[in-house]
Amino acid sequence: MRTIDWVDGAVELVDQTRLPDECVTLRVETVDELVGAIRRLSVRGAPALGVAGALGVVLARGDQDAVARLRAARPTAVNLAWGVDRAAARIPEGPEAVLETALRIRDDDIAACHAMGERGAELLEGDRLRIMTVCNTGGLACVERGTALGVAQTLHERGRLAEVLALETRPLLQGARLTAWELARMGAPHRLVTDGAGPYLLARGGVDAVLIGADRIAANGDTANKIGSYALALGAERAGVPFIVVAPESTIDPATPSGEHIEIEDRGADEIVAFRGTRVAPEGTDALNPAFDVTPHDLITAIVTEERVIRP
Amino acid sequence: MRTIDWVDGAVELVDQTRLPDECVTLRVETVDELVGAIRRLSVRGAPALGVAGALGVVLARGDQDAVARLRAARPTAVNLAWGVDRAAARIPEGPEAVLETALRIRDDDIAACHAMGERGAELLEGDRLRIMTVCNTGGLACVERGTALGVAQTLHERGRLAEVLALETRPLLQGARLTAWELARMGAPHRLVTDGAGPYLLARGGVDAVLIGADRIAANGDTANKIGSYALALGAERAGVPFIVVAPESTIDPATPSGEHIEIEDRGADEIVAFRGTRVAPEGTDALNPAFDVTPHDLITAIVTEERVIRP
Repeated sequence: MRTIDWVDGAVELVDQTRLPDECVTLRVETVDELVGAIRRLSVRGAPALGVAGALGVVLARGDQDAVARLRAARPTAVNLAWGVDRAAARIPEGPEAVLETALRIRDDDIAACHAMGERGAELLEGDRLRIMTVCNTGGLACVERGTALGVAQTLHERGRLAEVLALETRPLLQGARLTAWELARMGAPHRLVTDGAGPYLLARGGVDAVLIGADRIAANGDTANKIGSYALALGAERAGVPFIVVAPESTIDPATPSGEHIEIEDRGADEIVAFRGTRVAPEGTDALNPAFDVTPHDLITAIVTEERVIRP
Repeated sequence: MRTIDWVDGAVELVDQTRLPDECVTLRVETVDELVGAIRRLSVRGAPALGVAGALGVVLARGDQDAVARLRAARPTAVNLAWGVDRAAARIPEGPEAVLETALRIRDDDIAACHAMGERGAELLEGDRLRIMTVCNTGGLACVERGTALGVAQTLHERGRLAEVLALETRPLLQGARLTAWELARMGAPHRLVTDGAGPYLLARGGVDAVLIGADRIAANGDTANKIGSYALALGAERAGVPFIVVAPESTIDPATPSGEHIEIEDRGADEIVAFRGTRVAPEGTDALNPAFDVTPHDLITAIVTEERVIRP
């Protein structure tokens, strides 16, 4: 199964808002339909958004306004603009050239995830590995297989995975909704844990590595990723557990010297004070909702990309 | 308002399962009604359970079977058994003696919370303090005012509180449901944050102290408290923020030499895979649900009790 693909002249994507209850494929034939799907998080995950951006340019059929709307659908997702820009650069050459670039971005993503899975699995020692992870970094965040969760999949295929401990990932519960669904589909043993329990379970022992994805990696190795990653890094350091970032080369941003230059999106109180439409906090309660945090490079054991292993 | 009290021959308690939607007082006239209220968490919090146990012995009217049922209502709550035992020891002297002891436990709890609030506020320096806390340690966990949140209340009354950042406290959301409600009632500025965001917000700066309660403090100072406390302690250490435990002397357990001897209750998968009756994870998903964690004493700046400040 591919999370997003080009099928018979349109974009097809798994509607992630309906997981884990049902796995429905949306067929998207216009840029504005695609913009809607991106905004409501039917498609999400930095690599998948890069592919969506590129395929969306094919749907735009040379309409520069539509390309601009697509590029701005989620302003903080760097890969979306990157995919849009790469495909749009070929508009002067005609629709076949645009499609060729978009399909290459898709295929490159698939190949990169395979390579990250191999390299990550080779980096880890041991035969019955217990992995901890946060958010969703599986095939649903890419086209196939994924980044950090792709390494777990490779370990599982080689009989080297004992269990994945997946943090539920408040507030939007991508761990509970998406990662648990992917692990069940691949038949890999797993249990959910609350985000607050992650560092304590590392201290208690029995976890062999923490694997996370990345939204942006600064030039010095400081890594922005889903909120909660930094707490896991602190827990891993104290417990002596390797803390490994798995992300494609395109996530490394040489223009950002260090983590303090990475802007952290605050997604507002609504996601925290209510849960799937049910208010949990008293009326009028405010919340601080940073969607990402920054892990300083000194807490990162290794960064695994499709090309290399970096030790910050 | 008192969370639990003895009124006209019965126990009256605030039904915490209905907060923050409504504040309803339950009148409890029999031991078995009280056992039900304790089991469904209508009354919770170690100090409040101590008072509930003692007042419940008054309701038992010398029935030793009822006393035993009450003592076992929540086997992991040490204070419940402690309150039951102190009151039950006076059964031979007659019902007036039992009531006298139960009311003294209630009054001692109120006085202890006042003293902890004073001592904690004196320990902290500064005039516009931003406090981070987890779970609920306010009046709802005691009779009045509370432990860690009682310190925030004292600071607020003295005009020294800028804001409380309250962790929502998955899975049961005591921070979102109870702590936010208490802070709103006292008119203290506050915002909710997800549990995973706590350590990162400490790194980002602007938090002056982390204040937590305790469920058991070992002889060496290792402290068991709500899951997520250890992650905050790691974040506080890295950020250079004081990490302070506020708990009555009765929480210190000299019979437990260190944290590794504290049994940590696992409350099962249901609280994590579903939320208020709505399933969020795929059918069949398992979870690991430690309700508490242990913070090693070297991460604790001070333990504040009603009698002293301990620096482990």
